[in-house]
Amino acid sequence: MTDEASTDCDDAVPDRVGILAGWGSFPVELAEHYRSHGAQVHVVAIKGHAAPELENLSDSLRWTGVLKIGAGLKYFESKSVRHVAFAGKVFKDRILYHGRGWIEHMPDFTCYRLLGSSFITRRTDGRDDTILNAIMEEYRRRGIEVLPITKTAKHLLASEGCLTQRRISRAQRRDIDFGWQIARQMGGLDIGQSITVKDQIVLGVEAIEGTDALVTRTATICPRGGFTLVKVAKPNQDMRFDVPTIGPQTIERLARAGGSAVAIEAGKTIVVELTKTVELANKLGISIVVQPAEASKSEIARDAAAATPKASCTDLIVANQRPSSSRTQVQSASSRAA
Amino acid sequence: MTDEASTDCDDAVPDRVGILAGWGSFPVELAEHYRSHGAQVHVVAIKGHAAPELENLSDSLRWTGVLKIGAGLKYFESKSVRHVAFAGKVFKDRILYHGRGWIEHMPDFTCYRLLGSSFITRRTDGRDDTILNAIMEEYRRRGIEVLPITKTAKHLLASEGCLTQRRISRAQRRDIDFGWQIARQMGGLDIGQSITVKDQIVLGVEAIEGTDALVTRTATICPRGGFTLVKVAKPNQDMRFDVPTIGPQTIERLARAGGSAVAIEAGKTIVVELTKTVELANKLGISIVVQPAEASKSEIARDAAAATPKASCTDLIVANQRPSSSRTQVQSASSRAA
Repeated sequence: MTDEASTDCDDAVPDRVGILAGWGSFPVELAEHYRSHGAQVHVVAIKGHAAPELENLSDSLRWTGVLKIGAGLKYFESKSVRHVAFAGKVFKDRILYHGRGWIEHMPDFTCYRLLGSSFITRRTDGRDDTILNAIMEEYRRRGIEVLPITKTAKHLLASEGCLTQRRISRAQRRDIDFGWQIARQMGGLDIGQSITVKDQIVLGVEAIEGTDALVTRTATICPRGGFTLVKVAKPNQDMRFDVPTIGPQTIERLARAGGSAVAIEAGKTIVVELTKTVELANKLGISIVVQPAEASKSEIARDAAAATPKASCTDLIVANQRPSSSRTQVQSASSRAA
Repeated sequence: MTDEASTDCDDAVPDRVGILAGWGSFPVELAEHYRSHGAQVHVVAIKGHAAPELENLSDSLRWTGVLKIGAGLKYFESKSVRHVAFAGKVFKDRILYHGRGWIEHMPDFTCYRLLGSSFITRRTDGRDDTILNAIMEEYRRRGIEVLPITKTAKHLLASEGCLTQRRISRAQRRDIDFGWQIARQMGGLDIGQSITVKDQIVLGVEAIEGTDALVTRTATICPRGGFTLVKVAKPNQDMRFDVPTIGPQTIERLARAGGSAVAIEAGKTIVVELTKTVELANKLGISIVVQPAEASKSEIARDAAAATPKASCTDLIVANQRPSSSRTQVQSASSRAA
């Protein structure tokens, strides 16, 4: 009961927390964060994806195939974990279409039961949202809450403003405004999160291949460089999974590909290793711009229902775009980056 | 005046016709078609794009950079051409971002005047529709009509049905239905025309790089193969330019990449070298499925305005999806392919 009480407070970390860890440094940073708040950390690490250093950062860890959904659940249950965070990308293509994938990630019975309709009978589609919602529903049914990043590690979310010394040019501003609208609409289709833009032309669109592959490909499309990477949350982004993420590797890859700026969304994008990311961007001459978050329709509706009758819809949008904690977050981001 | 009168009839070819020729065999096939109907053919051929064999298929030809819009116009005027077809893809990335591009395609004064707002002052975006509408408006202003493919070479448009011996599986049917909706919505954003799909997952999305590059890339994302290429018209496809096109090269590339089917839209997709395309698909085990065309909102509105009060909206959609000439077209397609 302690755990549940503790999560009532918005930013509180549960005493005992599980991480279902995919690729990259986000699960690592999350584990460090939880440990630094005195929580016990139990990790289910996805083979071929999760970082080995998680072994030293957790109280217990089990390696498993991504499709061993029942096994993961059982492991968390055995450790009495009642709160789990899904963190880090899972490369669906590596699992589904590449040689060793199916062997390493052989589905267990729970997986068949949950995802059979996506991959065997194909009654439902194979979009991330479809799959992850089915998995989360099973966690919920077994009494385990999947935590949104906004609840336990809010500080990892980017705050509005330009994070780098290098500001953006007027042409880049136009590219970002243009790309932003396109990427938002793309996000609504749940295909990918990123596009690359130059001269108000969409150079590339991300699907299953991931942002890194998109950036690398853009280098061959536009060897002259100078393009912008626009990475946005979906209009109804579920903050429990698939939250757009950038980090040092994004910046490095962008610089190598000749890109010159990246635009992300405030309060809805994770910046892993913030200090290192900003330092690297400054060194490599990349601008990082955090755009004000756009309120989704459902957010506006929800807030409108809760609002006093006098508040207009515009007020609500503005309020949503500029959360009250925004300034403090920008400051803390800058101070961390300094 | 003869020319104008002749185009009043839906399928008539003008006595004298111009082709602004981009990449691929579509301009070649169009020139052959016009010549076989006794028309004089004058070609403005885009350097690095148009096929050299056009020289033997035209009454006159001039090579030019794609951005010499004024020069192209003047050439057609000098040949007293009053009807021009825009045919064949232009690789925007090759012109804009690759080394030699700007030199070979150095813009002329008309180009600066028309497209300055897209590429210099950047007041407007650089989407295909924006650029091509500006160019077509200039043609119109100078008294030259840009011909829609529906008017002069309707037989090049695919007709509903499965064109190949190999039919599609139930899984492919689901992939096509799923991909179709996504691709239609993507088309509304005017980014690209194609996506690749497998297991109701979008593997890749085309932007500036073109369909061929998308297909090649999908091979690395999904080395196990078996994916479907879905290529659709935009919801408000302008049949004067940028009409989705497939041909033998599409089939060859798809087969090499491990793809197994391609879905296109009836009456809105050009199949160049139809016989060769279908023969090749049969040989390589690829299915070609031509989906019924979906009426765009503007088409429904237009037809509704012209319809008798009794016709319901559903009737109009059905009527639009199955044009009366559809059956004859399918038959002629099959007989050509046989």
